[in-house]
Formats: sequence, C-alpha cells, structure tokens
Amino acid sequence: MINDRAVKQAIQTIEQSFSESIHALIRTTSFPEIEEPSRKLISDAMLYSLNAGGKRIRPMMLLEMARAYGGEISKTEPFAMAIEMIHTYSLVHDDLPSMDDDDLRRGKPTNHVVFGEDIAILAGDGLLNLASELMIQSAIENAGDIKYLRAMHEIMGASGANGMILGQVADIKSSDATVDLERLDFINGYKTGKLLTAALVAGGILGGADDEEVEKLRSIGKDMGHLFQIVDDLLDVVGDETKLGKRTQIDSKNLKITYPGLIGIEATRAKITEIANRLKDRIHTLRIEPTFLVSLVDFLADRDF
Amino acid sequence: MINDRAVKQAIQTIEQSFSESIHALIRTTSFPEIEEPSRKLISDAMLYSLNAGGKRIRPMMLLEMARAYGGEISKTEPFAMAIEMIHTYSLVHDDLPSMDDDDLRRGKPTNHVVFGEDIAILAGDGLLNLASELMIQSAIENAGDIKYLRAMHEIMGASGANGMILGQVADIKSSDATVDLERLDFINGYKTGKLLTAALVAGGILGGADDEEVEKLRSIGKDMGHLFQIVDDLLDVVGDETKLGKRTQIDSKNLKITYPGLIGIEATRAKITEIANRLKDRIHTLRIEPTFLVSLVDFLADRDF
Repeated sequence: MINDRAVKQAIQTIEQSFSESIHALIRTTSFPEIEEPSRKLISDAMLYSLNAGGKRIRPMMLLEMARAYGGEISKTEPFAMAIEMIHTYSLVHDDLPSMDDDDLRRGKPTNHVVFGEDIAILAGDGLLNLASELMIQSAIENAGDIKYLRAMHEIMGASGANGMILGQVADIKSSDATVDLERLDFINGYKTGKLLTAALVAGGILGGADDEEVEKLRSIGKDMGHLFQIVDDLLDVVGDETKLGKRTQIDSKNLKITYPGLIGIEATRAKITEIANRLKDRIHTLRIEPTFLVSLVDFLADRDF
Repeated sequence: MINDRAVKQAIQTIEQSFSESIHALIRTTSFPEIEEPSRKLISDAMLYSLNAGGKRIRPMMLLEMARAYGGEISKTEPFAMAIEMIHTYSLVHDDLPSMDDDDLRRGKPTNHVVFGEDIAILAGDGLLNLASELMIQSAIENAGDIKYLRAMHEIMGASGANGMILGQVADIKSSDATVDLERLDFINGYKTGKLLTAALVAGGILGGADDEEVEKLRSIGKDMGHLFQIVDDLLDVVGDETKLGKRTQIDSKNLKITYPGLIGIEATRAKITEIANRLKDRIHTLRIEPTFLVSLVDFLADRDF
C-alpha cells in the first residue's frame, strides 16, 4: 500500500506542474492572438480534455524512465506533454457519437457534448498535431542529438495506423463478431499497449538507455498495456462510476467483448495477478532502481479508478 | 497556354510516381501483416482518399522548390508525400457529416460514404500521423542536417491549431455570422494559405534556400493561397461539377460566405487577375529560375477544375 501511495503522490505532483505547463503552452506558444474567437474556441476545446484530470500515467512513465536512466528532465517534458496530448486526442475521438458514443469521461461531459461534434473532431486533430509540433521543436533545440528524433519516432509509430489507431479499428469492427482471447489481446495490444510501451521506451531513450535496455522496456511495456486493459475491463463490470469518472457497463451496453465477459470475474482477477508477478520479475532484470516500476505495477493492478 | 500545359504535365508525372510510392509505402512500411482485416480496412480507407486523384499541387510545389534551390529530390519525397497526406486528411475530416457534410469529392463518393463515419475519422487521424512518421523517419536518416527538422516544423506548424485547423474552426463558426472581406481573408489565409505556404517554404528549406529567400517564399505562398481560395469560391458558382469532381453550389447551400457572394463574379475575376500579376512581380525577385512558379500562378488563376 505504501508503494501505491508513492505512485499516487507522483501523479499529483505531475498533475500540478502539468496543468500549468499545458495551459501556458497552448495559450501562449500556439495561440498568439487569443482574442480571436476561433482561437479561443479551439484552444478551450483542446484544454478542456487535457485538463479534465486524467491519471497522467503515460507522461509519468516517460519522465520517470528518463530520470531513471540519467536524462535531463527539463528536456524531456515536451515529450511527456506530447504523449498525454496523443492519449487525450484518442479519447476525444473514441468518445464521438460515430465511435463509442460516450457522454461522460473523467467525471465530466465528453468533448463533443460540450463543444459539438465538429469542434471535438478538430480539437482531437489539433492535439495530435500539437504533440508532433512540440516534439519536433524539442528536436530542433537539441539538434545533433539523435535520441530526440528516435523518441519521437517511437511515439508517432505507436500512435499511428500500425499502432493505437489499428487497435481502435479492430475494436470497432469486433463488437459483434466472435472474439476469443487471442483476438482480445491483439486489440488491447494495439489500442492500449503500443502507446504505454512508447512511454517507457521513449523515456528510456531520452534518458540514454542502451538498445538492450530499450528492448527490455518494450517487452515490459507490452505486458503493462495488457495489465492496464484487463483492469479497465474489470472496472467496467465491478467499478464505481463516481470513482472512475466514466460510465460503467458501457462495454456490455455496446456488446463489447471483455476479459470478464470471456473468462469470468475470478479468472480475470487471477490473470491480473499473474501478469503483475511476471512484470515484477522482468523489472528486476533492468539496470535501474526498480521501485518506481514495481509501484506502478501494483498501482495499475489495484487501482479502483 | 503553353505554361499551363507545362504545369499539367508536371502534375501528371507527379501523380504517376506518387500513387505508386504512396501505395507501396502504406502497404509495406506501415502495414506489415496486411492479411489482418483491420489493417486492410484502415489501409484501404487511407489509400482511397490519397489515390482519389487530387491535383497534387502541394507536393509538386514542395518538390519543385527543393529542385529549384538545388536539393536532392529523392530525399525530399517523404516530405512531398507527407504534405499531401495532411491535405488529404483535412479533406476527409472536412467532408464529415458533422462538418461540411459532402458526399462527393474528386469525382468519387467521400470517405465516410464508402467506409462509414468512424473509419473515416480514423483514416484521417492515420494520415496525419503517418505524415509525421514519414518526416521524422527521413530526419533520422539524414541526422545531423537540421534542414529536415526545420522543414517538418514548417509543415506541422502550418497544419495545426494555429494554422489549417484554426481556419477550419473559423470557417465553421462564420457560416451564419456577418462576414466581411477581411474576415474571409483571415479564414482563407489559415484554411488554405498556411499549408500551401508551407509547401513552398519547406521545399525551399530542403533545397537549401537562405533565410531571405525563405521569407520571400513565405510571402508568395500567402498570396498563392489567397488566389487558390478565391478561384475555388468562383468555381463553386460558375464551375462544372464533372470537371471539378465535386458538387458546386455547396457554399450557397451551406450559406457560406464567398468572394463572389460578397463582391460579385466580375469583381472576383478582377481580384484574381490583380493577385496573379502581383505574384508574378514577386516571383521575379527570387534568385531561382521563375518559369515553374509563373506557370503555377497562371495554372491556379485559369484552372477550371
């Protein structure tokens, strides 16, 4: 439980500095003449979802890995913000009426409920674009150091049509097909696993991890994504809407196939423990101090929100 | 007329190699296991709009500027493909039911008519993401040469929430407001001008143009975007649906404010001639051979599709 509290503390710290940085970034860098009503509108729509109080798991993973391998944290921040922007854009688009049609996210009405479907689509586009702008800007400022380019390449590859987007397509098109565990793992691996993995890998690269460590981080990230999604599935069945800040029973409403639906609640809990234990073993083979990643596994496995 | 033919010839040449390159790129690089049905679906949706036969104005401008300033064309191709992908994604999203609600584009049913709204949104996301992937990949292959990063920065800045996306927001929100010429120029400047300008500027940067030339290209690009949009407005009133490959009278149907609507058809034609002449004067102050850009101005001013 102490570990769990440590991660929650880290999340709070990140959340605080994060909101300020993101606000300043969007308001000043990207929107020089904020009095223009369209600038204010798209800025508000982008900030609305970015500041809706997510867990900031991905930027935290990226920053902590960069720190663990000895990187300069201040130079890593644009990548942390970028990966959260990409995650947020994916939620905004996933929630759209033509996709999952969700009206509640992180305890607040979803982006399209507040701003309309057209602006929500454009706000998502704007977040994906701004993520790329942030990283390329950072790469220019650190020109000559290829690790900034490699980290960006990892993140953009993970979010694209051979990554997160593919997972969303597979998810949409699997709603009423016969889905088995293998298929479910494929969907989760792309939809959630790729970007979580990129957070660890890009963080490691920015910190200066060598290729062997990077490949270990990639393998750990894959299992963490798996863990994350199975817990998400479980919370949709047994979770508390108030704590989660989103509707539960959405998956069964949408006829979505999930782990509890396929193997039952108890077997799902056993699977979570199995993956968490395997992850901890792997984490101990890394060359870095293991506390953060071990705490993160406990946090992901035990979370109720 | 000979100039006009020269540009049409250039477009055909680009179109040919372009379709092949894009097809190969999406099928092989980005989608290694094409037998997976979701991969095939998102790949098909992305290729459908990319291969729907656009004019390829932006990649042509980028490649020709890179050539004019003495750059290596083969290394410039990823950027040419990227800028066309960004343009295409913006059309796919603009055509959506919650935006302009267009059912015909480049003579074919729009993406969401063929693939559904959900896949069309994801195909657009995938194209924007792939554009970024292509450019960062190229930057890694040419590591140590900052011009690849600068070109990418120009393009991503032009397409984002302080560029093309802002223009689309302003356009959506101006439909039934009182719009004057100044406002219309603001909308066009962002919605169309920014990315056209980035095509010239990024091409110049990749070719090795110095800062003074780059700023001249920026100013020329701005006017070219202006010219392009005014002709577009005019064609919506006087154009031929078959040649244009899209519905006409869409703007008046949507109560969109346009140049012909604000100042009439004859004054619009006069404005086109005025901008074209000013552009040619500016082009002659560049250090490069002017034929291509002058032909392009004639082509943009006289086009009937």
